[in-house]
Amino acid sequence: MNVVQRIILILALALSAGVTPAQGDTGNEEKTYRLGVVVFEGFELLDIMGPLEMFGNVGKRLEIVMIAEKAGEVSSAQKVKTVADYSFKNCPKLDLILVPGGRGTGLFVKNEASMKWLQQRSAEVDIVASVCNGSDILAQAGLLDGYDATTNKMAFSLISARSPGVNWVRKARWVDDGDRITSSGVSAGIDMSLHVIERLFGEKSALMIAYRTEYEWHRDPNWDPFAEPRRNR
Amino acid sequence: MNVVQRIILILALALSAGVTPAQGDTGNEEKTYRLGVVVFEGFELLDIMGPLEMFGNVGKRLEIVMIAEKAGEVSSAQKVKTVADYSFKNCPKLDLILVPGGRGTGLFVKNEASMKWLQQRSAEVDIVASVCNGSDILAQAGLLDGYDATTNKMAFSLISARSPGVNWVRKARWVDDGDRITSSGVSAGIDMSLHVIERLFGEKSALMIAYRTEYEWHRDPNWDPFAEPRRNR
Repeated sequence: MNVVQRIILILALALSAGVTPAQGDTGNEEKTYRLGVVVFEGFELLDIMGPLEMFGNVGKRLEIVMIAEKAGEVSSAQKVKTVADYSFKNCPKLDLILVPGGRGTGLFVKNEASMKWLQQRSAEVDIVASVCNGSDILAQAGLLDGYDATTNKMAFSLISARSPGVNWVRKARWVDDGDRITSSGVSAGIDMSLHVIERLFGEKSALMIAYRTEYEWHRDPNWDPFAEPRRNR
Repeated sequence: MNVVQRIILILALALSAGVTPAQGDTGNEEKTYRLGVVVFEGFELLDIMGPLEMFGNVGKRLEIVMIAEKAGEVSSAQKVKTVADYSFKNCPKLDLILVPGGRGTGLFVKNEASMKWLQQRSAEVDIVASVCNGSDILAQAGLLDGYDATTNKMAFSLISARSPGVNWVRKARWVDDGDRITSSGVSAGIDMSLHVIERLFGEKSALMIAYRTEYEWHRDPNWDPFAEPRRNR
């Protein structure tokens, strides 16, 4: 193995171990963020795991904590489980909140303690983001009143009718309205997350993470083929 | 609410509850599959969760079981956890096997019992599929000898050099070689999974699941912008 091969091997190993050049962009003095991910029975699997693949590759400047009504195992709508590190009661201070959708949202909004926790914590963080019909939770908690927002397209009419105080945007992959960022259905959360990473950590970090995960990022928030009525697909 | 609105609402609710028309395509008499997902410490989160979003929406004809050296909680490379239902020792009969990549592959291949389990079970199933450098595990287990296969693009040279008995294909989103299907890095597993769903359950199921999850499926297995050397992205 010559010197060039050796350097390429070391770089490949470093990259595969998650030590990305993108992390080198950011000085240790820069702000770090704790992202709280709200988990509940019947969450849509990719609503959480798509964004967390991206956020989980940011590096030391972003810490992920999983939060549910009770700490421990939580089942997704696809039955695959994840584990909540904290309950709503012992959850540490957060900088960012991510709320997924899924068939479990209906029970979540009926749980007064959970909704109250979300309302209180949302007032303290920089950004509250949602994926899919997670925005239905935010809207019913009053956290989107007067904001531009979107949601998943199959349930768009239902969700938008339920919360008329929100400026619902049909054709949008995601909507960034400052301290509220909402995405369209399921997979759209991945595109939104890369946008959040770009906003907080810079374009180079977002592009590097998309590249490393071989993800074709839809960077245009107005790209939304799912907003049109379904033709004969 | 008029009759049309009522019908639309019922359809929207049925769809959001996972009762897709796609499931209606498939008679109860048709073959059902049990998909065993191999889990190990340091698995790449989306390598598993991207495919399982898609497989998890197939319906009654596909059962997902998570398998690890020991049943219980397992941490991904992104630290987010999942839960293994079975250990390699008490795992039920499988029809399909999915092997993820991630920084934990190196330890997996050194574990003789795990590799032996994989070799034995792979001989009994219809398809062994891998995502990202999961194909490095399959190759080192001798399960890809003589097969066409791909792997993630950042480590392509390293992995292909290690297992010269495999016909490595650089430019491929995924490679279907019958009872072995391998995908490129991380996100490519989602495209591959939809292909597997199409092969087993029909085009309509795959298209419906992609549509419901608002996922832009790359249907061409030769689509692979990540095969080219990285320019100034």
